[in-house]
Amino acid sequence: MKNFLKKFREDSFRQELWEREAKIIVAVSGGPDSACLLDVFCELRKKYALELIIAHVNYNLRGKDSAGDEKFVLKLAEKYGLEAEILRPKIKSKKNLENNLRDIRYAFLEKIRYERDFHWIAVGHNLDDQAETFLQRLIRGAGMRGLCGMQFKNGKIIRPLLGFLRCEISEYLKLRKLKYRTDKTNQENIFLRNRIRHQLLPYLEKNFNPRFRETLFQTAVSLGEDYALIENWSQEFFQKNRDLSVKKILSLPKALQKRIILKFLREISGQLKNVESAHLEEILKIFKSRKNKNQNIHFQGLKIERKGDKVTIVKKMAEECEFSQN
Amino acid sequence: MKNFLKKFREDSFRQELWEREAKIIVAVSGGPDSACLLDVFCELRKKYALELIIAHVNYNLRGKDSAGDEKFVLKLAEKYGLEAEILRPKIKSKKNLENNLRDIRYAFLEKIRYERDFHWIAVGHNLDDQAETFLQRLIRGAGMRGLCGMQFKNGKIIRPLLGFLRCEISEYLKLRKLKYRTDKTNQENIFLRNRIRHQLLPYLEKNFNPRFRETLFQTAVSLGEDYALIENWSQEFFQKNRDLSVKKILSLPKALQKRIILKFLREISGQLKNVESAHLEEILKIFKSRKNKNQNIHFQGLKIERKGDKVTIVKKMAEECEFSQN
Repeated sequence: MKNFLKKFREDSFRQELWEREAKIIVAVSGGPDSACLLDVFCELRKKYALELIIAHVNYNLRGKDSAGDEKFVLKLAEKYGLEAEILRPKIKSKKNLENNLRDIRYAFLEKIRYERDFHWIAVGHNLDDQAETFLQRLIRGAGMRGLCGMQFKNGKIIRPLLGFLRCEISEYLKLRKLKYRTDKTNQENIFLRNRIRHQLLPYLEKNFNPRFRETLFQTAVSLGEDYALIENWSQEFFQKNRDLSVKKILSLPKALQKRIILKFLREISGQLKNVESAHLEEILKIFKSRKNKNQNIHFQGLKIERKGDKVTIVKKMAEECEFSQN
Repeated sequence: MKNFLKKFREDSFRQELWEREAKIIVAVSGGPDSACLLDVFCELRKKYALELIIAHVNYNLRGKDSAGDEKFVLKLAEKYGLEAEILRPKIKSKKNLENNLRDIRYAFLEKIRYERDFHWIAVGHNLDDQAETFLQRLIRGAGMRGLCGMQFKNGKIIRPLLGFLRCEISEYLKLRKLKYRTDKTNQENIFLRNRIRHQLLPYLEKNFNPRFRETLFQTAVSLGEDYALIENWSQEFFQKNRDLSVKKILSLPKALQKRIILKFLREISGQLKNVESAHLEEILKIFKSRKNKNQNIHFQGLKIERKGDKVTIVKKMAEECEFSQN
């Protein structure tokens, strides 16, 4: 346990996650990771004069289990003498559920942070999560954006447990005799992830690299830094260039061309869904075309039109959309 | 076979690999990939008015087999009515052999290209090579630089077979009844790669994604584009800033800090070996240090010293090196 706390502090300081007298919101689901995270922060609270509160989101999607989680978190709050903020959002649509829940959760956490003038929002992701996500995305197909891992720090979100293996966290919980809740949907729903966790990773560690999880973790962190860099640069270009010149776009390195076009599409559309690299290739074709004719493409309710050197993207009117369906 | 040629042309045109009347050096080892590559180019020679020559390197490392390869390539040259340039380099040191051979090969190919005023050097890498290299590096640990794949085009080097599976190439050879040489060292030496080829990839394709090879290939190509971008940018910064200011380096995004320091180290040293991310972290520490004292680090015969805002890197004199060993 001493080693655990030592590594926790070392990781935190090296990554500049929090400092003396920091005000930290701890996101607690009730699962093992967040139970551990909360306990560690409470251990360090006095020494570093930390101010802590708990935040919990009850989506109420698992009936009794959800109510049980909330109750459990409230008990933790009592045990550690902390305030707890609970959100019970109404889920309107079950479309794209996982992403929606994440958006709701982070918006809520950020709202509390802002209103209460706290510094950081701590969440409990661990090294195994990172490695599994990496493999999951690699298997399904991903570029840098998909492969880049969660970062120790991302804006106001901090992940002090990101450098810990799941088994180290379990060990800590055991030694400290801490309770936690088990989310049953974890075992049922997330089929691919479970096969990665229980089959692929053990297979790779047995046959190829006994520390493959840690290796993947490093790769993901490093790709994440690179991704942040490219994103910043393309954002800068996007902000300086308010329209799409064929000449300018084609003079950019390949890696930027599609990223910039995507930014323009997103800005105009506001609600773009699942744009794949192949779609962007299609759109790039009208940039590359040497025909003199004006050209256009219709895509997700947008009209992308080239006249000479300029490409414009406009939202189609409702009638236009209907018309193009006839 | 028709489909093979069609895809070959499509890939070539989409990636802008070669054009009508191109003058192309085909690098031929005698193995299946280069035998296929050569045959395809000869099939297309007339229609596209291509000018072709063969280049072959005989390292003479495998006795009779090496001589046999050379003979085989000369026979191919005769069969297709092409000139063949043969290099028989003297291998001085067997240290870091694989990298040395590659350097020798590419220097030779580029020399012929330059002297003869040819446009492109075509090499036979295929999609399986790409996928295997990716997994090999992922398993051993790599960031973007390691994971980014071979590109269809890289300077004057073109890889028109990069989009083809090994089995598609075999199929082509079989249909055209073409002969090729088998490199026995392939089966003996390259242990990890063979386990990836014969165990890991089939396992992943059977259990997780039947088209995993193609998926990895796309990922590698896309990371390669991103890598080129970051490399260009850091090269630009490096050329504009001829000394190392602590303030400037620390104001850069994380992903650039280490890359730029590495460029300075490489320039001063000229012969840096295996620099790992951890070494660069160590060096970065003297940038980040808030102590006012002058500080220095000794690293691979270099002295890295900070005075105030400036960090200098100098080669240590021979005596200094000896001294620091005492």
